[in-house]
Amino acid sequence: MNIPNINDILLAQKRIKHLINKTPILTSSQINEMTGAEIFFKCENFQKVGAFKYRGASNSVAALNNDELIYGVATHSSGNHAQALALAAKIKHIPAYIVMPNNAPIVKINAVKGYEAEIIFCKPTLEARESTLNNIVEKTNAKFIHPFKHFEVIAGQGTVALEIFDEIEKLDYIIAPVGGGGLLSGTSITTKAISPNTKVIAAEPEAANDAFQSFYGNKLVLSENPNTVCDGLLTSLGEINYSIIKSNVSDIFTCNDNDIIRSMKLIWERMKIIVEPSSAVALAIVLQNKNYFIGKRIAIILSGGNVDLDKLPWNN
Amino acid sequence: MNIPNINDILLAQKRIKHLINKTPILTSSQINEMTGAEIFFKCENFQKVGAFKYRGASNSVAALNNDELIYGVATHSSGNHAQALALAAKIKHIPAYIVMPNNAPIVKINAVKGYEAEIIFCKPTLEARESTLNNIVEKTNAKFIHPFKHFEVIAGQGTVALEIFDEIEKLDYIIAPVGGGGLLSGTSITTKAISPNTKVIAAEPEAANDAFQSFYGNKLVLSENPNTVCDGLLTSLGEINYSIIKSNVSDIFTCNDNDIIRSMKLIWERMKIIVEPSSAVALAIVLQNKNYFIGKRIAIILSGGNVDLDKLPWNN
Repeated sequence: MNIPNINDILLAQKRIKHLINKTPILTSSQINEMTGAEIFFKCENFQKVGAFKYRGASNSVAALNNDELIYGVATHSSGNHAQALALAAKIKHIPAYIVMPNNAPIVKINAVKGYEAEIIFCKPTLEARESTLNNIVEKTNAKFIHPFKHFEVIAGQGTVALEIFDEIEKLDYIIAPVGGGGLLSGTSITTKAISPNTKVIAAEPEAANDAFQSFYGNKLVLSENPNTVCDGLLTSLGEINYSIIKSNVSDIFTCNDNDIIRSMKLIWERMKIIVEPSSAVALAIVLQNKNYFIGKRIAIILSGGNVDLDKLPWNN
Repeated sequence: MNIPNINDILLAQKRIKHLINKTPILTSSQINEMTGAEIFFKCENFQKVGAFKYRGASNSVAALNNDELIYGVATHSSGNHAQALALAAKIKHIPAYIVMPNNAPIVKINAVKGYEAEIIFCKPTLEARESTLNNIVEKTNAKFIHPFKHFEVIAGQGTVALEIFDEIEKLDYIIAPVGGGGLLSGTSITTKAISPNTKVIAAEPEAANDAFQSFYGNKLVLSENPNTVCDGLLTSLGEINYSIIKSNVSDIFTCNDNDIIRSMKLIWERMKIIVEPSSAVALAIVLQNKNYFIGKRIAIILSGGNVDLDKLPWNN
């Protein structure tokens, strides 16, 4: 397995610096009071396309050589990675082919169309996604950019933590949510290299706890039909991501969907910013494990802010 | 009439600098594309208590002399000024008496209680508010801090524009929403003194257009039973505010509630920040008057972010 190191992440930062938003780090005295900790929220909900995913996608496109650029990029995703890759390709004026399940929400389909990508619909199964993607790649010669296993995607996601350590010193913990593990593995590589005294913690919904099971069971477990409000954390951990996480991460905490929705609403109400459910898991685990985190300096990565405003989870 | 000048506003800034949040100025390339203008959003939704009102309230409390401090402050308000004054008083360890209508939303009552103010309920009429307030002031000797007519309130609200001109040069327009006129009059005094080439524009809901009528009719008109989604802009313009606005403001634009709700949702979706309806009027008038604003550099003051997340206007 070819695993990115800190130099790959520094190179990614150099490549994408002028393409991405340097997102702000916000604090809330009210949330600090509630938790007894000092929390620094890294706001990737303010990233382009509304999620950290744009870092990995734009690094992957920026890393293509001239021969590869001609054919463009392809992926399967119905979420933020689809939009991110579509925009990264649009900016470079290269084609993007996005395989999406035919039951994907209209909102997400339109967002990808808005970035002028070509959408190829398939049945909503993993097999259909992969075979459709293979056909497209064979037909078009486009480069497949996997949402979280791709080398340059992991390196790109690692730049979030670079920006955090650039601004905030003496962090006890850095917490990232975990789905496929792209953000978490990139974060952990950066942290180990730049701030080895900072422990990396993962936050995962109970109802999709494959990373938790894999980490503590010492072998990769796939999640089966996970059902959580965190639509960004449904995918199972990738093999390469598991192996990075296994050696760099200190702990994985889980919590239930009610705690996540409460934490999400708290962030909206107190901080006046919009985060998606996947972003709220990290604060939820801090609130659920106060004794563990009390008195500590903690960076929390708010992964994204793409929410259907007509269907908020507390209105269900 | 004793009208604050720029020195009063600079003094206010000196007084409250360490008490308030220096709020960020955000931009959105998507909204710039939609409007054809270059817009700088001053985010007072990130101010303490979630609204610019904290500036005027904390300046008013900071301006009290030792004799006045003993007796504390009083006001009538069911909105952001109530919370703002309660917090400003709490921080100075002085009493705050807040007269609220007995039909005020529980959320707002609890917010004021959370800042340890004493709440006095009255019937939901202007007469009841004023007579109850007078009784309280007589009984307690507390200083009445009017939500928008008070000298130090206007001076405090003028500090928003100071921060804008400190960061952004060559603005063609600065746009503020108008209710009672505290923010607008403070903004206009600062602008005339610091950036005389920048025109001050007011944004007002059609359904509460007393400022529009007063401004163009050349005499103060009170609104009668206004009914708009902008709960922060229901009050009629104050006399002192009218007189300041009349000499400093260039234009007042109005728009209807549907446009305001659309503009509010646009800000939530594209900028991932939470603003209340009153904050969205300014962008709504830019979107409704594209030819007027095209190609211009515009500062928009987002006045606050206090919204009941269980009752969003687009879900009605």
